[in-house]
Amino acid sequence: MTQKLMAAGAGVDLAIADSYNLVSRQFKPEDTVINVMGAKIGGRHLGIMAGPCAVESLEQLLTAARVVKGAGAQFLRGGAYKPRTSPYAFQGLAERGLEFLAEARVQTGLRIVTEVIDASAVELVSHYADVLQIGARNMQNFHLLKMAGRTDKPILLKRGLAATISEWLNAAEYIMSEGNYRVILCERGIRTFETYTRSTLDLGAVAAVKNLSHLPVIVDPSHGTGRWQMVRPMARAAIAAGADGLIIEVHPNPAIALCDGKQSLTPENFSRLMYEVEAIAAIAGKAID
Amino acid sequence: MTQKLMAAGAGVDLAIADSYNLVSRQFKPEDTVINVMGAKIGGRHLGIMAGPCAVESLEQLLTAARVVKGAGAQFLRGGAYKPRTSPYAFQGLAERGLEFLAEARVQTGLRIVTEVIDASAVELVSHYADVLQIGARNMQNFHLLKMAGRTDKPILLKRGLAATISEWLNAAEYIMSEGNYRVILCERGIRTFETYTRSTLDLGAVAAVKNLSHLPVIVDPSHGTGRWQMVRPMARAAIAAGADGLIIEVHPNPAIALCDGKQSLTPENFSRLMYEVEAIAAIAGKAID
Amino acid sequence: MTQKLMAAGAGVDLAIADSYNLVSRQFKPEDTVINVMGAKIGGRHLGIMAGPCAVESLEQLLTAARVVKGAGAQFLRGGAYKPRTSPYAFQGLAERGLEFLAEARVQTGLRIVTEVIDASAVELVSHYADVLQIGARNMQNFHLLKMAGRTDKPILLKRGLAATISEWLNAAEYIMSEGNYRVILCERGIRTFETYTRSTLDLGAVAAVKNLSHLPVIVDPSHGTGRWQMVRPMARAAIAAGADGLIIEVHPNPAIALCDGKQSLTPENFSRLMYEVEAIAAIAGKAID
Amino acid sequence: MTQKLMAAGAGVDLAIADSYNLVSRQFKPEDTVINVMGAKIGGRHLGIMAGPCAVESLEQLLTAARVVKGAGAQFLRGGAYKPRTSPYAFQGLAERGLEFLAEARVQTGLRIVTEVIDASAVELVSHYADVLQIGARNMQNFHLLKMAGRTDKPILLKRGLAATISEWLNAAEYIMSEGNYRVILCERGIRTFETYTRSTLDLGAVAAVKNLSHLPVIVDPSHGTGRWQMVRPMARAAIAAGADGLIIEVHPNPAIALCDGKQSLTPENFSRLMYEVEAIAAIAGKAID
Repeated sequence: MTQKLMAAGAGVDLAIADSYNLVSRQFKPEDTVINVMGAKIGGRHLGIMAGPCAVESLEQLLTAARVVKGAGAQFLRGGAYKPRTSPYAFQGLAERGLEFLAEARVQTGLRIVTEVIDASAVELVSHYADVLQIGARNMQNFHLLKMAGRTDKPILLKRGLAATISEWLNAAEYIMSEGNYRVILCERGIRTFETYTRSTLDLGAVAAVKNLSHLPVIVDPSHGTGRWQMVRPMARAAIAAGADGLIIEVHPNPAIALCDGKQSLTPENFSRLMYEVEAIAAIAGKAID
Repeated sequence: MTQKLMAAGAGVDLAIADSYNLVSRQFKPEDTVINVMGAKIGGRHLGIMAGPCAVESLEQLLTAARVVKGAGAQFLRGGAYKPRTSPYAFQGLAERGLEFLAEARVQTGLRIVTEVIDASAVELVSHYADVLQIGARNMQNFHLLKMAGRTDKPILLKRGLAATISEWLNAAEYIMSEGNYRVILCERGIRTFETYTRSTLDLGAVAAVKNLSHLPVIVDPSHGTGRWQMVRPMARAAIAAGADGLIIEVHPNPAIALCDGKQSLTPENFSRLMYEVEAIAAIAGKAID
Repeated sequence: MTQKLMAAGAGVDLAIADSYNLVSRQFKPEDTVINVMGAKIGGRHLGIMAGPCAVESLEQLLTAARVVKGAGAQFLRGGAYKPRTSPYAFQGLAERGLEFLAEARVQTGLRIVTEVIDASAVELVSHYADVLQIGARNMQNFHLLKMAGRTDKPILLKRGLAATISEWLNAAEYIMSEGNYRVILCERGIRTFETYTRSTLDLGAVAAVKNLSHLPVIVDPSHGTGRWQMVRPMARAAIAAGADGLIIEVHPNPAIALCDGKQSLTPENFSRLMYEVEAIAAIAGKAID
Repeated sequence: MTQKLMAAGAGVDLAIADSYNLVSRQFKPEDTVINVMGAKIGGRHLGIMAGPCAVESLEQLLTAARVVKGAGAQFLRGGAYKPRTSPYAFQGLAERGLEFLAEARVQTGLRIVTEVIDASAVELVSHYADVLQIGARNMQNFHLLKMAGRTDKPILLKRGLAATISEWLNAAEYIMSEGNYRVILCERGIRTFETYTRSTLDLGAVAAVKNLSHLPVIVDPSHGTGRWQMVRPMARAAIAAGADGLIIEVHPNPAIALCDGKQSLTPENFSRLMYEVEAIAAIAGKAID
């Protein structure tokens, strides 16, 4: 039904738009649970990923890693390659950033989530990361999706800024059709006319995905709002809506962050968030374990 | 700051777009609590409004009223005048519908929330209703807003389908500037490219309004999703995001509803929703009382 | 087909959303030509409406009227009642503004187009105006539509900021279903994520309406862009796309306009626009007459 | 000014969002004219690109090529690699498609425009094509942009489905910052709530780009509407708005096209379109030469 609606626009081939299969609840009725070195996401298990927008230095990263580990996160996020609107903005530390992430894993035991922004870099990033992130701007970079589908790493697939739910699930199908079934979806906000927030976080998409697919879906309230003051309430709301986890920007000192400082939580606020999230998760019979 | 952003578009007068005052947190730092015949909305108090989309008959209305009362709602919602896209669609029972609502109040003690769709009907509807609803399509019907501002009834002001948060707060300012300070805001979904859901429920707007205004804000997950399967998760999420209440479509038999059957809850599902909402509210230190 | 697509969303009754009739090409295959005191709009006839956003004084209005008349416009536009986002913004001169408009008609012979913002004012405004304008924010103010449908004046019906083409045509159906068949549609831009322009002018809607309906459709490039530099190119594009006319903001001195100065043309630029529009119209076999 | 508006959202670094330079009118006040083997685009020169959505066979391609050449197009478009929503949809003939395109150039003298969908394929596609197209979904595939910037081929850069004008110009800046100054922008429609058309063609973006940049900008009314009936009016409108050219889907027999048949013109309709476009271009002092 969904796909038929999606496909009803002019010039779209109904049969084809209707064709995702591996991602669907029809194909697999029970929830998929993805195990990343002992941390589970999906079903009754919440996965919490946190850390700075960009890897800036080993010191900054380790400080952030210890903070998020202490508050209960199982995954460290941090960008080594940053897709930026302007070619003159900070583009990330590249492979050196990946090395710092690997070092943070050694020192904290946290699993590493980091973005791969081109198919040619999939092999390199896979060497360092535990979860490969595909960003919103690359959700329909089909060559990248296929390459990600040929790795043995779980893929965190962010929804595009103007992607329909059907297109998002079809992007996941690209990955799965290459043999990699460990896909974690991530709602991170869509683009609307509203300018108070950076994006409009579409928590309805979480409920929709739960109906349509067996894959786990997590939420990014940092990019979804662009304002740190809104991250805690939206993180609570995401879990209450049924999300299987969160990815949160946390910076030891947001005021000096090289990117996204306005949407990064302080360590203190992240701890409060974790406390609230666990309470709501308990009501839903879920836990961070 | 917000208003400056909103006003940054071409051709907008900054000083004026910046000018809402009575609705702002700066004007009144503490949360406004609105008392409707003993039921409070705002601060630590949740208000729950439920009932059918349209008043269809006295019997249908009374059945729905008893159901929602039994599950813990304090308000009965039901439309006597229905704004419909087509002139040939069911337009509501008009004054007879208002009489049925008044009868339901007598029999159940529920407070009545119903829509007024034109300034000329404000007096008549005020005669029957306890809360006057202004619908999304009328959010910038400024004459209606002013007339509502001259009554002594609380006003439930729905956000327009493409209204920015600033425009919505300015609409509330129209009401308050006429002397009626009892305005309850209601997020009911905005229009985006997504077609799986009827609207995109913008729960970020709840968190934003909490920062910008002292007024209570409730959420309508029925219109905000258009699918009954999504109403419970989004109701939970709304409360977790900090909403001060809910307005929910409940029909004794959704399959035969004259309007919005696909988004109406059965009595059983509404009871489950209330149970979940109270649990989440407790975490936030809020209650339905 | 169109209506079926529009109606395919969740919770919408297909049969009813499909039901506009009087506005459709199926009902009346040939183009409707509306004659307003000798000026024709529709078919091979272009109607040009121009003047200030708001009536500010008799002098300002008469200056503008002579300018637009001299450049070839047949209609004078000007707001006596201004729907403004903020209650504290200039709301128009009200009935005195209507009197000035009537005086301008006497002195120039231009037909008067002015907005009516509430059903209760339809009678008063009809007393002064030759064409009643219903603004974007009131496109689904159904009571107002019905009252407009009971007058003997042509109605200029602007598209709502987030209205689908189907909803817009259904709004016209409301007017026609009351017996008034003289409806002129007006595309004035829709709300999107783009912030460089005030709205996104949807000229595809002109072509779409030409397929779906026999009613004339004109374009408002002033509100549709919010920037005077873009008004001329978009006016040309509108006529090339098949529009039956234009409504343009022209102010003797945009720098001191009480509203919308940034999108108002100077007299010189309006004359240039008229010259270009006539050349493009000639290619399409249309003329201002 | 533009960039300041764009950058006013939460969490965006003003200085950086403001930083495109090489693409701006400030950097180069006069229009850039791009010469592709004798065919010029920009300034007073229109470039017309036409052909099938996908290369299906040599015969289909040659038939289409002769048709569009006969009607006056200077460029043949056709996809050898098709970015498709579903992994199970026709993905193009790949290198064999490129060979057919090269053969069509030999037989007709038309310049070849074709899409490159991954950075790793830039070298291969450059071997066959005269203009490299970067599609809407890849507008912020920054690695691809950089690789395109290192070739000596002109780049046709389509606007993303939800890209702001500022983001689009920044994407062009990525290409130019690598040394390739021959960038042709292409407006192809943005995603809005409207479902009657496949996209909403934003012709205001043409006028905006003309103010902000010296680069040529063309329009794709085929993808921008998704309906062949709307292609001719929107092509006329694009030229009237100031576009420097068009890219149009033409198929010898749209009914059997493997993709986008509903938006493809027949040879007859394309000839009519060319006739109309030349007439409007003449008014603007432009020509296809």
